[in-house]
Amino acid sequence: MSQQTVNGVPSRGKVLTLDNMNPNVKRVEYAVRGPIVQRAVQIEKELKEGVKKPFSEVIKANIGDAHAMGQKPITFLRQVLALCSYPELLEDNKFPEDAKKRAKRILQACGGHSIGAYSASQGIECVRQDVARYIEKRDGGISSNPDNIYLSTGASDAIVTMLKLLVCGEGRDRTGVMISIPQYPLYSAALADLGAVQVSYYLDEDKCWSLDVAELRRSLNAARQHCNPRVLCIINPGNPTGQVQSRQCIEDVIRFAKEEHLFLMADEVYQDNVYAEGCKFHSFKKVLFEMGPEYSSTVEMASFHSTSKCYMGECGFRGGYMEIINMDPEVKAQLTKLVSVRLCPPVPGQALLDLVVNPPQPDEPSYTTFMKERTVVLADLAEKARLTEQIFNKVPGITCNPVQGAMYTFPRITLSQKAIDKAKEEGQVPDMFYCMKLLEEEGICLVPGSGFGQREGTFHFRMTILPPTEKLKVVLHKISEFHLRFTQEFS
Amino acid sequence: MSQQTVNGVPSRGKVLTLDNMNPNVKRVEYAVRGPIVQRAVQIEKELKEGVKKPFSEVIKANIGDAHAMGQKPITFLRQVLALCSYPELLEDNKFPEDAKKRAKRILQACGGHSIGAYSASQGIECVRQDVARYIEKRDGGISSNPDNIYLSTGASDAIVTMLKLLVCGEGRDRTGVMISIPQYPLYSAALADLGAVQVSYYLDEDKCWSLDVAELRRSLNAARQHCNPRVLCIINPGNPTGQVQSRQCIEDVIRFAKEEHLFLMADEVYQDNVYAEGCKFHSFKKVLFEMGPEYSSTVEMASFHSTSKCYMGECGFRGGYMEIINMDPEVKAQLTKLVSVRLCPPVPGQALLDLVVNPPQPDEPSYTTFMKERTVVLADLAEKARLTEQIFNKVPGITCNPVQGAMYTFPRITLSQKAIDKAKEEGQVPDMFYCMKLLEEEGICLVPGSGFGQREGTFHFRMTILPPTEKLKVVLHKISEFHLRFTQEFS
Repeated sequence: MSQQTVNGVPSRGKVLTLDNMNPNVKRVEYAVRGPIVQRAVQIEKELKEGVKKPFSEVIKANIGDAHAMGQKPITFLRQVLALCSYPELLEDNKFPEDAKKRAKRILQACGGHSIGAYSASQGIECVRQDVARYIEKRDGGISSNPDNIYLSTGASDAIVTMLKLLVCGEGRDRTGVMISIPQYPLYSAALADLGAVQVSYYLDEDKCWSLDVAELRRSLNAARQHCNPRVLCIINPGNPTGQVQSRQCIEDVIRFAKEEHLFLMADEVYQDNVYAEGCKFHSFKKVLFEMGPEYSSTVEMASFHSTSKCYMGECGFRGGYMEIINMDPEVKAQLTKLVSVRLCPPVPGQALLDLVVNPPQPDEPSYTTFMKERTVVLADLAEKARLTEQIFNKVPGITCNPVQGAMYTFPRITLSQKAIDKAKEEGQVPDMFYCMKLLEEEGICLVPGSGFGQREGTFHFRMTILPPTEKLKVVLHKISEFHLRFTQEFS
Repeated sequence: MSQQTVNGVPSRGKVLTLDNMNPNVKRVEYAVRGPIVQRAVQIEKELKEGVKKPFSEVIKANIGDAHAMGQKPITFLRQVLALCSYPELLEDNKFPEDAKKRAKRILQACGGHSIGAYSASQGIECVRQDVARYIEKRDGGISSNPDNIYLSTGASDAIVTMLKLLVCGEGRDRTGVMISIPQYPLYSAALADLGAVQVSYYLDEDKCWSLDVAELRRSLNAARQHCNPRVLCIINPGNPTGQVQSRQCIEDVIRFAKEEHLFLMADEVYQDNVYAEGCKFHSFKKVLFEMGPEYSSTVEMASFHSTSKCYMGECGFRGGYMEIINMDPEVKAQLTKLVSVRLCPPVPGQALLDLVVNPPQPDEPSYTTFMKERTVVLADLAEKARLTEQIFNKVPGITCNPVQGAMYTFPRITLSQKAIDKAKEEGQVPDMFYCMKLLEEEGICLVPGSGFGQREGTFHFRMTILPPTEKLKVVLHKISEFHLRFTQEFS
C-alpha cells in the first residue's frame, strides 16, 4: 500500500491503481479503437467548436461500420424490428404481410410475447432453428443441429467465450492460440485478457495474403518450445487483409488441425462479402464434411457469424451466433452453463439475426425490394473494392493486394529511413506516425498496420472500403496525395 | 493427451475435454438458470408433447423476468424504440410528438443517424449526459459527470468488467471480494471465472436481512489470513433478500470501506423497487457526498443500474450503466480501453436507457399515460410484496421477512431430519430436493437457497413476486399446500 500525502495528511492513496490492477487488462491492446480514434474524436470536437483545420469533417475509415458511413438499413429488417418493438403496429396496413408474419413468429417465441423478456441463454429456440436451416442451405444440405447453435452479443462475444473455455495450464503448459498476422486485434486482446499465449503465423503478402501450411507448421513447432498450442484461429474472408481462402487451402488447414490435434476456430463473419472474380466463400464446415467421416466426426470446430457485416451492416444490434462441431458433450454443458451467467444475448439482435438467416422468399411481398437493396449494397462494395486496389496501386510507395472479400484494404506503404527516424524521435511506431500525420492534415482516420501485426520492417494501414463511392474516391486521392507529400518531406 | 480407441483405431480423443478445459469455468455456478430451470424447460416440452402431469403449465418464478410473467411493456418506451428502428414512422401521425422528439434526438446522436451503427464504446454521448442528469436529480443536485458514466450490456456486464479490473495477485496476495450471503450468484460466478477469492459476509435474517458492520469486520479479518480483500459489494435493495438498507447503515458501510481501504461496488438495480412503508432508497453516492469531502473525495466506488428491473422490466434489451467515482485516471483509461474491445453495448438498449432516465415530462403528451402505466406496475408490485409475506407467514414451517424492495422473497423453510436424509440419499442438497419435488408435483419453478448461499443448517428458496396478482395467489397457495404435504411426508 503506497503512502502518499494529501494536504499534509498522510493518505493511503487509491485502492485501485495502475500498479495493483489486473495485469492482463494492462496488456490488452485494441488498435481499431485506440489512440488514433481518440484523437479523431477530439478533432471532431475541435471542428464543432470552430477550430480551423485544413478539412471540414473527419472521415473515420478505421472501422467496418456501414451505417455510420451512410449505408441505409435494409427496409424489411427494420420493419420487422419496429413491429417487434411495438406490436400495436401489427394492426397497421402500411406493413407488408411477410414482415408481420416474421414479427408474429418471433414474438410468439418470446416470453410473454415480448422482446423485453429474457430469452434462453443459448438464444431463442426458433431463431436457432432458423440459423441451423440457413447453415444447411449454405452448405448444400449438410445437417446442422440447433442444439449446436449459440446466439451471441455480436461475434466478438462468442469468440471470447470460446477462447475462455479453451485456456488452461501454467508456464510451458499454458494454452497457445494460433492467430494469423496480420490479425483482427480482438484475438490478441482476448488472449492478453485471458493470459493465453499468442502463437503467430504469417500470411503471405506476396501471394495475396494466402495461408501456407508450411508456415503454420513452422509457427506451431516454434511455439511448442514454450507453450501448449491447442487452438488454430482462421479469419476467412480475411480481416484486415481481405483475402478469400481457396477450397484447397481450407482442406489443408483442416488436415493440419487434425494431425496436430488443434481446435479450429473459423471466423466467417464476412461470408457474404466476396467480390473478386474466381473467388468463392467455402465454409470450413462444408469442407470438413466433404472430407469424409474421418474428419467430420473428429475435428472439433467452432464457426462464427454476425449481423454486423455482409449487406446489412447492423453493428449496433450486436447480433451473432456460433456453431460448434464435435464438441465433447461435457464441455458443451459447461459452455451452456457459462453463457447462462450473462442471462441472454440482446433479444433485438436475436430477432435481427433471425431475419438475416430467413430473409424474404421469392413468393413473398418484400422479396423484390429486399433483393434490390441487398444487391445494390453488395455490388457497390465490389465496385469499391476494385476502385481501392486500382487507385492505391498507381501511387509509388503504396502496394495493395486485391480486396477479394470482407470490407478492408491493408496496403503496404514504403517509409524512408528518415521518416522512421522521425517517428522514433516522436516516440511513435512509424506507421502510427504516418497515420497520425494523415489524420491531422487530411482528417482521415485509418488504423496503423502495427495494430494488426505485420512482418518486421514492413508498414501498412487498414482502411475500410465502406464510404460511399464518391467519398471513397476523394479519400483515396487524398491519401495518395498525402503519401506523395509525406515521401517527399522525408526523402 | 489421452489415448482412446475408436472402431479399433487408436485415437487421441478430443482436443477439448472436461479435464483440460479452463478450470475456473468449471467452478462457475449460476443457480438462477441451473439444473432446476433445465428440468423446468424439459417438463414444458413434455407437456407440449401431451405427457400427463398434475398441472397444465410450468410457472417459472425463478427469475425476475417481468414481461415473461405477463407485464406489458410501457407504451412510450416501445413507441420510441419502433421509431428508432424504422424512422419512416416519424412521418406517421399516430405517434405522439414527444416520442418523435426523443427518437430524433437519439438518431441524431447515432453514426449515420442509425441505431445500426456502432456507438462510442463508453456509450452514446447524449445518453451518458441524460444518465448524469438523472443521477443529479435523483441525488438532490450532487453533480455527476457524463465522463464517469459507462453504458453496458445489462448491469451484469458492467459488474463483471469492474471486477475484472480489480483482480490481481497470487496466493495470499490474490484479490478478495466481499459479497453478502445470501448473494445474487452473478457475483460468485464472476469471481470463480476470474479466479478471485470470494469473501462472504452474512446478512442478518432475524433483523430483516440487515447488514451489520461488525459482521463485515469479522469477515474481513478472517479473509486477511488468506487473501487480499480489496472490494466490498453491496446489493441494495437486496437480491434475493428484498431488504432496503437504511441511510445509517449505508453511512456505516462507507465509513468501513474508507477505514479498511476497500473499493465499493453498489448494485442498485432495484432503486425504483421500494414498497414497504418507512423504507426509502438512498443511493450510495448521495450518502457518500453528504458525508463530506473527507469521504466524497476519497472513497472509490462504482454504482450499477439496469433497464431490466424497476417498472419497465425490459430484460431482453440488455441495457444498463455504471457510474464510477474517484477512480484513478490511469485506471479509468484502462477501463475505457477494456470496454472498447467489445466495440459497444447494444444500441437499442442504450436508446431504451435514455428513455428510462429521461421519461415524459408533465408538459408532454405522453406524460399521463406513462405515469399511469408506471404507477400501476409499481402499485401492483407493492401489493404483491405484501401478499407474499402475508400468505407465507401463515404456513407452519415457512418464515418470511417483509419484501421491502426488489422483486423476490427469500423465505426460510424448516426441513425435517428425515427430509434432509432423503435428499442426501438422492444425492441432492436438501433445498434442491425440496424445489425439484415442488417442480415435479406443482409445476412451479423456484431457485433453492443454496444457489445464493445461506447459513449452514438453514434452508430457503427464492421466488419472484412478479406473476400477476391472481396467479401469484394460486402459486402461493400451491406452495403452501405443497409445504404442508412435504412436511407430513417426511415427519
